[in-house]
Amino acid sequence: MTATKVTAELADWIVGLEASVIPAEVRKEGVRTFVNWVGCAVGGARHETVDCALAAVEPFSGPRQATVLGRGEKLDALHAALLNGITSHVLDYDDTHLKTIIHPAGPVASALMALAEIRPLSGHDLLTALIVGVEVECRIGNAVYPDHYDRGWHITGTAGVFGAAAAVGRAIGLDAQKMRWALGLAATQSAGLREMFGTMTKSFHPGRAAQNGAMAAFLAEAGFDSSEQVLEAPRGFAKVMSDKQDYGEIIDGLGIRWEAALNSYKPFACGIVIHPTIDGCQQIRAEIAARVAEIEKVHLIAHPLVLELTGKTAPKTGLEAKFSVYHAAACALLRGDGAPTAFTDEVVNSPEIVALRDRVKATADPACHEASVSIEVTFQDGSTLKKHVERTLGSRERPLSDDQLETKFMNQAKLVIGEAPSRALLDLAWTIEDIDRAAAVAAASVPAAKLRNAAV
Amino acid sequence: MTATKVTAELADWIVGLEASVIPAEVRKEGVRTFVNWVGCAVGGARHETVDCALAAVEPFSGPRQATVLGRGEKLDALHAALLNGITSHVLDYDDTHLKTIIHPAGPVASALMALAEIRPLSGHDLLTALIVGVEVECRIGNAVYPDHYDRGWHITGTAGVFGAAAAVGRAIGLDAQKMRWALGLAATQSAGLREMFGTMTKSFHPGRAAQNGAMAAFLAEAGFDSSEQVLEAPRGFAKVMSDKQDYGEIIDGLGIRWEAALNSYKPFACGIVIHPTIDGCQQIRAEIAARVAEIEKVHLIAHPLVLELTGKTAPKTGLEAKFSVYHAAACALLRGDGAPTAFTDEVVNSPEIVALRDRVKATADPACHEASVSIEVTFQDGSTLKKHVERTLGSRERPLSDDQLETKFMNQAKLVIGEAPSRALLDLAWTIEDIDRAAAVAAASVPAAKLRNAAV
Repeated sequence: MTATKVTAELADWIVGLEASVIPAEVRKEGVRTFVNWVGCAVGGARHETVDCALAAVEPFSGPRQATVLGRGEKLDALHAALLNGITSHVLDYDDTHLKTIIHPAGPVASALMALAEIRPLSGHDLLTALIVGVEVECRIGNAVYPDHYDRGWHITGTAGVFGAAAAVGRAIGLDAQKMRWALGLAATQSAGLREMFGTMTKSFHPGRAAQNGAMAAFLAEAGFDSSEQVLEAPRGFAKVMSDKQDYGEIIDGLGIRWEAALNSYKPFACGIVIHPTIDGCQQIRAEIAARVAEIEKVHLIAHPLVLELTGKTAPKTGLEAKFSVYHAAACALLRGDGAPTAFTDEVVNSPEIVALRDRVKATADPACHEASVSIEVTFQDGSTLKKHVERTLGSRERPLSDDQLETKFMNQAKLVIGEAPSRALLDLAWTIEDIDRAAAVAAASVPAAKLRNAAV
Repeated sequence: MTATKVTAELADWIVGLEASVIPAEVRKEGVRTFVNWVGCAVGGARHETVDCALAAVEPFSGPRQATVLGRGEKLDALHAALLNGITSHVLDYDDTHLKTIIHPAGPVASALMALAEIRPLSGHDLLTALIVGVEVECRIGNAVYPDHYDRGWHITGTAGVFGAAAAVGRAIGLDAQKMRWALGLAATQSAGLREMFGTMTKSFHPGRAAQNGAMAAFLAEAGFDSSEQVLEAPRGFAKVMSDKQDYGEIIDGLGIRWEAALNSYKPFACGIVIHPTIDGCQQIRAEIAARVAEIEKVHLIAHPLVLELTGKTAPKTGLEAKFSVYHAAACALLRGDGAPTAFTDEVVNSPEIVALRDRVKATADPACHEASVSIEVTFQDGSTLKKHVERTLGSRERPLSDDQLETKFMNQAKLVIGEAPSRALLDLAWTIEDIDRAAAVAAASVPAAKLRNAAV
């Protein structure tokens, strides 16, 4: 296909799409995306990373317009977008577009929820904009993946900023030209290095993508002009940041093929390539029960990306442990845990976990699918047990059910805001399409007691 | 050299440098850098680009801590850094590190001046931090230029963010570890595409670099951790954003070889590759006076980059005309003008200018130096006149004198804040090293009358 008009065609679609033509199953997946995002934002709200970010930005925050979900603090909408993007990603427990490893909701929903607190936005319109934003970032991701990612870009940040700009731009009613500018302003802020994995800065990426994408839309709204062909230009996003440019992925079948319908939700709070291992180790634990204490060693045969991304053999912190398939296997076998509680500094350094972790070996096998793993456990008596996971829980073939999403939501949210407020928030989030003011979700994420405590 | 410890060595130098060892000539060039930056920030303050940016960010601004130089508005320090980075670059009249085409002061001085309004900062310490920040961004630029720039990155944005982080980080007293984090946080925000040239978004880049670099320093101060080897890591800045990585350019001869001493200042308000042409055309005009009306055609022989960067044959706006060597030649011949007044929408569309512009031809010659040009003017009677510029005004061989810097400062600042306040501001800027509170410069950039008008 020719490389002309890519940005223009995409912008036309973003601003012109009739919400009514979005298929019901796409909207349903949009609701699941939203529910999962709310749970993750609340679940991550008390993380040390968030405390540090808040301390840094508080002195510069504008009017207290928008809520940091799950906390009492309010910030101006741009900073709230940043913080909610951080909270919803910091536990590595969010959603995943498996074709690109983009975590779609963080950049987009964080920007939209902050917007909803400063301008009238119904739940129905928020959901439409969320679906559009997710579609845009995943399509742009498809156009450059895997080269772009292999080069070292954290694609949730680099593609996410387009999703946030598209979503906010649509929600505030940009015309097609201003939408092209917004995409240009998004592209010129596209950033985020994979080098940051294992540090607080990883979750800064979806946060900044949300904030920068919203900023792009607001600048365009104010008449701040930009390139109108940033995706396909000779010095545009795709050429500068990737050796692969498949523009058909961006504009072919818009409104027919829906990337937003392919979103998936993490069952475990860590890098997605570890998930087959945790799934398999949990299954083994369920089968052998008390014999976990007799395990001599563990051998994993996994996709090469598992070792490339999560090969940390001796993690010292919870954040580092999210990039250690060795820790994850040990923790799943000994405690059955793959939730955020499996990735605390304390658990990572517990002698029992460390002892087993050091006896886990992993081998890369290019023939192994990314969603698969083969596990061999050897016991002290020399006997062995093998487990093959063909497709992990959370994959497209074994998606989390609505019930499992609810359990995941509750398990993380209740630790932050308590059981009853979490249940009320969950119920409200499921009804997003029927809410007159989407901002009600942000308000419901903060129990009254927390609001009082945080009052300045 | 090995690629280890690049970030660590640079961070050690940034935090450990004794101001007293900076050579006098380096400090002197630092003062000239500062003076030129103040003039450009005030000179650009009323540009439409700035109005649009202000309209977009005003609703989100925090406490009115810091000044948009040359205007009455105050914003929180981060947004003030953004705006001053925009104002100081929007006329394309700022400073240039010729080896990398980085415009060094915009990202660094804009961040520091905003900082000076929220924390105690003497003029002496501001100047030291400015020199350090400029040194850091230019060295990092050297390490990846030209590949990085050729690929399409606007290096003032991508390298500038490091300069701002280093300068602010030093000024607020980060220790070496936090400085490494600040550099990591800067790298992961490094962005800006050359595709934006000719639009408002070009000047957004130094502004955002200033804001993002300051943010990086403040996040690191608050304990927000990051990679500690972002410059040299396999997925770090240099590897991801360039095919060239010359780490020696970053850490060899720190404190001995000073890139900050190589700064130059634009005599004309446009892309630097056009400068030889304007210089030569002004010389021709001075020689032939009224005969400019008899010019039939003009032929330029210039470096290939001139056509690549500034080959717009029919610019419609002032911003576009900064990327048209044809417009620049016509305007210099007919009006003798290369100042911001040569790049207004009105002048660009004046029939007289358009008529001559369309009769300017340019040929690329790889043998021609970037700072040179050969001009042949043919008159209606068939006679010709040739002019060769060996090195343009503003080059390292023909730097602007202090007097010429003063004239440049006054010519742009007086249009915005008037003659007497401009003179007072200029005098104050020259004495930056002796000022107890550097913030006094920001205050002096706004005449009392403007302050009253802008009071909210």
